[in-house]
Amino acid sequence: MTYCVTISLNQGLISVSDSRTNAGVDNLSSYSKMRTYGMPGERQFVICASGNLATTQNVFDQIEQDIDSSEAVSLMTVKTLVDAAKYVGKTSVTQQRLTPGGHIFEANFLVSGQIIRAPCRAFLIYPEGNYITSSPETPFLQIGEAKYGKPILDRLVNVNSSLEQAVYCALLSMDATTRSNMSVGPPIDVSMYRKDELDKIKHVRFSEDSPY
Amino acid sequence: MTYCVTISLNQGLISVSDSRTNAGVDNLSSYSKMRTYGMPGERQFVICASGNLATTQNVFDQIEQDIDSSEAVSLMTVKTLVDAAKYVGKTSVTQQRLTPGGHIFEANFLVSGQIIRAPCRAFLIYPEGNYITSSPETPFLQIGEAKYGKPILDRLVNVNSSLEQAVYCALLSMDATTRSNMSVGPPIDVSMYRKDELDKIKHVRFSEDSPY
Repeated sequence: MTYCVTISLNQGLISVSDSRTNAGVDNLSSYSKMRTYGMPGERQFVICASGNLATTQNVFDQIEQDIDSSEAVSLMTVKTLVDAAKYVGKTSVTQQRLTPGGHIFEANFLVSGQIIRAPCRAFLIYPEGNYITSSPETPFLQIGEAKYGKPILDRLVNVNSSLEQAVYCALLSMDATTRSNMSVGPPIDVSMYRKDELDKIKHVRFSEDSPY
Repeated sequence: MTYCVTISLNQGLISVSDSRTNAGVDNLSSYSKMRTYGMPGERQFVICASGNLATTQNVFDQIEQDIDSSEAVSLMTVKTLVDAAKYVGKTSVTQQRLTPGGHIFEANFLVSGQIIRAPCRAFLIYPEGNYITSSPETPFLQIGEAKYGKPILDRLVNVNSSLEQAVYCALLSMDATTRSNMSVGPPIDVSMYRKDELDKIKHVRFSEDSPY
């Protein structure tokens, strides 16, 4: 399983994701589920993924191929965050349908970021390709094993929280999940983006033995 | 949905249950999901139920009919807590199979208590009638919407916790669940049983507007 959360605040964006993947309890491995993409000064994105690993890896590969291509629609060419959400939804549906055996292996994504002269936005993309966004009343979006870590967010996070408060809550939310569910585990990826700092997204990774 | 938790401690037993039942989000009502049964000085039981309301009500009715009958096996005649767990499991399976239409409407139960000259025990009874017990490593058993309230128990409760500490943790666990999931709600039933006090089980109910 997986647990990822993105929080959309007045001050910016926070995302936290775990790295455990499993095919049954006897086949555990570790893959980062967070990617950051950007064009300094112009646009920045964070994407987190849950669901079938083959699907999510294919989606990330396609996103990167499209960025490298001079002709394709990509995260570097979309005009708005809504268009970025639609693009990821479409890419996800396409990749799910490409499985040779005809099976559908589903995946969910959290897409957040900012494009110059527009506000920060965050979206949850469903396996069907449709999406929802966060709101002032519901500033966080979760995918994967969401229940264990929800109470701490419900209690402590609102849109006026600082980036520092929110990243602390998101890490507590992740800690609650990893303690209670062995299918979610470190390393933990954390990204922090301060509104209008279009140059870069801060990204750190905490391993299991991190003193933090 | 439902959330119930029973904690088995060196000092005794704690159970907490909510009272919300729903058939879809537009049909909410309120029923206590906790019953206490006892023979002062001899034996005391707490039973919490989750699952189909028709099934759980039938099981409680049958348990009470059996207690009133002079011939039936009942909670007043079983020799051990294990026998009590087996009895509730069998009663549950029987009631599930009695639905006239042939459908199976499942239910889970938490059975805990003490019979004179034996230790306190707690059991989780599955819809199939089989059961597991708590252990020093896993002192709590949960049924229903268990995930939201699990982190607080994982962090704070162990068999050496006092009854007062454990009841506080169980209420926080319930509070986390009711805040994050509208299918779990007050009034909240709380029972507290101190080991070897075979006379009675303390049982209180907190309504939504309880100052506590």
